[in-house]
Amino acid sequence: MTSLRDVAERAQVAVSTVSAALNGTRPVKAETKRRIERAAAELGYRPNLLARGLVSKRTRILALLFPPPGSGFGLTEMQFATGAAEAAAELGYHLLLSPESADPVEELRYLTGMGLVDGVLLMEVRLADERTDFLLESGTPFAMIGRTREPGSLDYADIDFARTARDAVAHLAGLGHRAIALLNHSTGAYSPGYGPAVRAGEEFAAAAREAGLWYAGDVRADTAGEGRLAFERLMAEHPEVTAVAAMSDQAAVGVLQAVEERGWRVPGDLSLLLASASARVAEMFRPRLTTLEPPGAELGRLGARMLIDRLESPGSPPAQRLVPCRLVIGDSSAPPRGSGAAR
Amino acid sequence: MTSLRDVAERAQVAVSTVSAALNGTRPVKAETKRRIERAAAELGYRPNLLARGLVSKRTRILALLFPPPGSGFGLTEMQFATGAAEAAAELGYHLLLSPESADPVEELRYLTGMGLVDGVLLMEVRLADERTDFLLESGTPFAMIGRTREPGSLDYADIDFARTARDAVAHLAGLGHRAIALLNHSTGAYSPGYGPAVRAGEEFAAAAREAGLWYAGDVRADTAGEGRLAFERLMAEHPEVTAVAAMSDQAAVGVLQAVEERGWRVPGDLSLLLASASARVAEMFRPRLTTLEPPGAELGRLGARMLIDRLESPGSPPAQRLVPCRLVIGDSSAPPRGSGAAR
Repeated sequence: MTSLRDVAERAQVAVSTVSAALNGTRPVKAETKRRIERAAAELGYRPNLLARGLVSKRTRILALLFPPPGSGFGLTEMQFATGAAEAAAELGYHLLLSPESADPVEELRYLTGMGLVDGVLLMEVRLADERTDFLLESGTPFAMIGRTREPGSLDYADIDFARTARDAVAHLAGLGHRAIALLNHSTGAYSPGYGPAVRAGEEFAAAAREAGLWYAGDVRADTAGEGRLAFERLMAEHPEVTAVAAMSDQAAVGVLQAVEERGWRVPGDLSLLLASASARVAEMFRPRLTTLEPPGAELGRLGARMLIDRLESPGSPPAQRLVPCRLVIGDSSAPPRGSGAAR
Repeated sequence: MTSLRDVAERAQVAVSTVSAALNGTRPVKAETKRRIERAAAELGYRPNLLARGLVSKRTRILALLFPPPGSGFGLTEMQFATGAAEAAAELGYHLLLSPESADPVEELRYLTGMGLVDGVLLMEVRLADERTDFLLESGTPFAMIGRTREPGSLDYADIDFARTARDAVAHLAGLGHRAIALLNHSTGAYSPGYGPAVRAGEEFAAAAREAGLWYAGDVRADTAGEGRLAFERLMAEHPEVTAVAAMSDQAAVGVLQAVEERGWRVPGDLSLLLASASARVAEMFRPRLTTLEPPGAELGRLGARMLIDRLESPGSPPAQRLVPCRLVIGDSSAPPRGSGAAR
């Protein structure tokens, strides 16, 4: 039988450090902890996580609640998951992928009632999110990727929509555009309380106002068909608009169809941006679209780290981080039509 | 304190059924099990998973090993994960997302040595995969999404490459194409032993031979730049090729660039297919590309179910399932250039 002492020798640390690392009784540097866990594994030492969990009441398992497929879950959301799983692994934790049912609070009650997870990571957070109420009442540690309307002292990592909108508007204003539109999410897939849609709408409006641009914000589309119709309506009502940023990449497909049908071209007749898509997605379009790339993996990593910090130092101050999207300039943004510069 | 009896009454089953469901001592119908677990949660009955795990030696946790980001991990692979997590949840299991390190076998030793997981789901399986050797030797139950060269009696769910290739080739032959090419993965991101690349190559060659088409199979590209060069080289050496299927969507971007540079058009001058991408990705291209959509969620679900069956009925015969990609016809496949039909 391998003993704690054997593990300590192999990892070249004190026995008390091995015990602390394996039982989570006091903080041990992540790198040291990892070395100890590897030494234990190499020697076939079975700390028995279950027995440890009974004593420490901790499992070192975090749950990430993810939305059901067909809800628009895409590459960015996948990056939340993989980023969080990697950050958790680096700190000696495990990430459980928990699909959400129609009743997320009941799901949470089930999940936390089993003693399986130490804490919960939320994503697709709504402005008023009943899940946070349940987690607060039940005393379950949690962190959010995204945030509620008034996150108060809750831990979160979210997109810096204000800075992202300013960067995008500055790019368009710099090219000479005077009237722009945000093609926001429609209320189909995303109900009215969906945080990113509301915040993007507010912040694009504010950034346009500050930059002195005319702004159409009440245009919505999530599918190619909706995007095509919404763009046609926009052009009928506001022919002065020369640049559009689309929140949904599917809606952007529809805008491109409508542009083609009018015999127009991107970017000569219309500048088209993706408001929330990876450069990899933007590159598939012809022309390659300018995009605001969300920091998916970084937000996932930050969320997991915050939650682990909260578990290990319950009394620490709230961790709240905003990270802007990265403006990746493609071939779809140029001076406005009629300016003489783009033709 | 809530008792087993209270749970049994609420769930309207016998006490022994509650015990069997919560302790995993004998099989209980998934639906009944779920009802019991919900009743337990509603009553605040804490079966204490950890204590149960100590007795039953089972945690009902499955690990899905996933490749590091930047390895080409995309929507399909995400669907493996979410499909597997959902199937696991339906059967009362949990899915742990385990990022792979540079040394996957060491990672597996660590993961299985902790007593945390009942079994392992592998993805991105290579033709010769050292992970399967370790899992077999250590007696860890596992199932594969993908398969090794000779899976023997191992459980797996994989793409039916033979049928997928036949469907694609039949589509092109039906349009009148006589010479086609597969733009396979390059050896950069995917080393030579990557199963899907090898199988797709073999099966496209076989399907083309059967259909009496000339076939170029040794063209490889994973990036837009590689795709552009590979296509130019292909046209220089084999100007008779009128249709190309690309394994990588990035490589397809490069082919479209090269087509444009020659003053050609898709599909009039070249039919272009995605050999492994979702309809959602194919729709972002202009024109919308014809694609072979991999059954990502279904393979994830099948893999998780097989692994759970293996855990609950260790002696059952091997479960091996092949599912073809779905041919989704877009605007990028048409009769070959010079045929007079497409212009």
